[in-house]
Amino acid sequence: MRRDTMPNAFRPGAVELPPDQAALVARRQAALGPAYRLFYERPLHLMRGEGVWLYDAEGKAYLDTYNNVASCGHCHPKIVAAMADQAAVFASHTRYLHDGVLRLAERLLATLPSEIGHMMFTCTGSEANDLAIRIARAATGGNGIIVTENAYHGVTAAVAEFSPSLGPGVPLGPHVRVVPAPMGRDFGADVQAAIDDLKRHGIQPAVLIADTVFSSDGVIVDPTVLAPAVVAIRAAGGLFIADEVQPGFGRLGHGMWGFTRHGVVPDMVSMGKPMGNGYPLAGLALRPEVIARFGAEARYFNTFGGNAVAAAVGNAVLDVIEGEGLIENAARVGATFAAGLRDLASRHAALGELRAEGLFLGQDIVTEGAPDAARAGRIVNGLREDGVLISATGPKGHVLKIRPPLTFSAENTAIFLERLDRVLGRITG
Amino acid sequence: MRRDTMPNAFRPGAVELPPDQAALVARRQAALGPAYRLFYERPLHLMRGEGVWLYDAEGKAYLDTYNNVASCGHCHPKIVAAMADQAAVFASHTRYLHDGVLRLAERLLATLPSEIGHMMFTCTGSEANDLAIRIARAATGGNGIIVTENAYHGVTAAVAEFSPSLGPGVPLGPHVRVVPAPMGRDFGADVQAAIDDLKRHGIQPAVLIADTVFSSDGVIVDPTVLAPAVVAIRAAGGLFIADEVQPGFGRLGHGMWGFTRHGVVPDMVSMGKPMGNGYPLAGLALRPEVIARFGAEARYFNTFGGNAVAAAVGNAVLDVIEGEGLIENAARVGATFAAGLRDLASRHAALGELRAEGLFLGQDIVTEGAPDAARAGRIVNGLREDGVLISATGPKGHVLKIRPPLTFSAENTAIFLERLDRVLGRITG
Repeated sequence: MRRDTMPNAFRPGAVELPPDQAALVARRQAALGPAYRLFYERPLHLMRGEGVWLYDAEGKAYLDTYNNVASCGHCHPKIVAAMADQAAVFASHTRYLHDGVLRLAERLLATLPSEIGHMMFTCTGSEANDLAIRIARAATGGNGIIVTENAYHGVTAAVAEFSPSLGPGVPLGPHVRVVPAPMGRDFGADVQAAIDDLKRHGIQPAVLIADTVFSSDGVIVDPTVLAPAVVAIRAAGGLFIADEVQPGFGRLGHGMWGFTRHGVVPDMVSMGKPMGNGYPLAGLALRPEVIARFGAEARYFNTFGGNAVAAAVGNAVLDVIEGEGLIENAARVGATFAAGLRDLASRHAALGELRAEGLFLGQDIVTEGAPDAARAGRIVNGLREDGVLISATGPKGHVLKIRPPLTFSAENTAIFLERLDRVLGRITG
Repeated sequence: MRRDTMPNAFRPGAVELPPDQAALVARRQAALGPAYRLFYERPLHLMRGEGVWLYDAEGKAYLDTYNNVASCGHCHPKIVAAMADQAAVFASHTRYLHDGVLRLAERLLATLPSEIGHMMFTCTGSEANDLAIRIARAATGGNGIIVTENAYHGVTAAVAEFSPSLGPGVPLGPHVRVVPAPMGRDFGADVQAAIDDLKRHGIQPAVLIADTVFSSDGVIVDPTVLAPAVVAIRAAGGLFIADEVQPGFGRLGHGMWGFTRHGVVPDMVSMGKPMGNGYPLAGLALRPEVIARFGAEARYFNTFGGNAVAAAVGNAVLDVIEGEGLIENAARVGATFAAGLRDLASRHAALGELRAEGLFLGQDIVTEGAPDAARAGRIVNGLREDGVLISATGPKGHVLKIRPPLTFSAENTAIFLERLDRVLGRITG
């Protein structure tokens, strides 16, 4: 059987579960089928969320330092109220005039460089990246796509074929080229080589798409890598799409978007996950010249994308990010968090390189300096037992992926570090 | 400039608008860009919905006989409450155990034939059909897709290329074959010819996908057409996908699904729009043998698909459909509606053939017996002035598409017929 490439996936039968959980797992396998995966050696049965805490069916509390969707905190009362209030009044689509979706578009565009003039709405980040590819094909006449080696951009048929992190069971398209993640490498040169190879095969380059903090490649925060690659793709007639689904909405503590750290202005910016704090809301911002041809030849309608409730939720999320100073908090608490991890690393040899920016942290787990995915897995599962949620990522699966809600406090950080210290002692000692 | 193939699309500049509406249209064009379309010669600015009624910014009421998403009625209080209550408690995803999504899956599967054993969740019908194609490719090893001539199945890159109703600006894939809508034709023979043509080009047939009431082809209710076509695609090693996004959830007044009228059991059933009564919720039901290979090689995760709030909403929608007897209501009121339209046709020559099943009605608009899309457009816009919302559809754009909420009453029907009578007198007299 094929190795499952998903870090931290539950393997049915590997561990004996209590009867109530085993019953849920069995119901799940029967009803949802074989393509679904659970997290953890012993899956979590969660019932309740509040701020940075989640609670399981027994009432046990878990400090959530993983789920980046609820970026304003789980069940934020203002966002829930905005959703409920609008849903009680009107919930229809973008083929009627409505102020809410225009306000949301205008507010989002105000956070973006002036070159980016239009905003389109979808329900998921996958749909946003899928739409970006359709638009890029029309704009460039090309079809070639360049991504990093463990990139994840979504699950539609078109997007899955340029998401190598889905593993060998999901083939890459013949028009897709993969470049190494930009760690200690000349990313511009790697992208240029991919462009040359596409052309050598008669494929016109259409896009370079990159998560601006390379989330699935292990969290890479060097802000100098993107600019030369963007120059290269544009010189080849292609476009640069910044995938902000994970880094966007202030997580990195430097304004709203990850690409600004790199000093580039993308042709398109896709966004999702935290955009609705749990409500299915995503979108695509773009330069007007990029959509001109697609807009003249085709039209775009997404039944639920940008509906009145989605817009109310999106506006409430922006209110909370601004009103609660979450970007400043991400920068401040993120720095404390990173300092604490570096301090812990002086006492635990398992903690290798840390890459951190705001509240997005990638902590390598090593044994005698070498990547150790199995040890990372034991830490992830150990923390779960001790009431802290994280996961692992990276091409080798050895990077702890830490992405708490942006409301995370210094006290929450202290709890995390104390429990990680304990787990490391237990696992490596 | 290319003819816009969307019936009832607003054309900027064609009609002078009041200043407040013109301002909204200008903001919209600036913020959302050129790919978005509004409905009507004079767009609607809607503010409020309740049951079968929508209200614009001036407080004018519109009888909604078009928007099939709010199938349980706009802003149904029980469904809004279910959403708000769950969102206030927990809103996370399918990688943790949660009872709600399992209950929803089990309840949906109980409405389907026993051969269909698994349920997967997405946010949109587009995502459901896109996932169906990925699964079909894995299951059959083929790639050929057969659709009807004006079919609409969604807007992802993979699905748009087998949605001919999007118009000539959105090219069909080289692996896609289009067959005539099954009106007065041998649909089985047409599908067989498409299979033969795919094979002649070296393309292995993967799926026949059809909306089970052929919504975009003009609403075709003959229940004998699908069975021979399903036999043909299976004999060629392909699968049959029933697209229930429009006919599903009881609209046709015969159980939950359109395919049951045809006496076939699909390999996959995609569903969406009314599934969440406005909340972005969609899904795919399938036979276990169809997903076996995909499940072994790949995995499926949709961040928002099947989250705890989506599941609560989906369960509430099923409660309302059952508790308020909406399927029976669709059958009863639909029959009254159809009888009223046929009666009106005896006095208005513009009303040609009517095809109706439950609360899905397709009314041809003709002049001297020939399809007349322009006249259909005048009727749609005339009804809008008189406070009734419908649209037009079909390959020639001359079919009035009537799909009210399933809570529609005989009194609502009388209002519709009276206003249509008046509009027809005004337009044709």
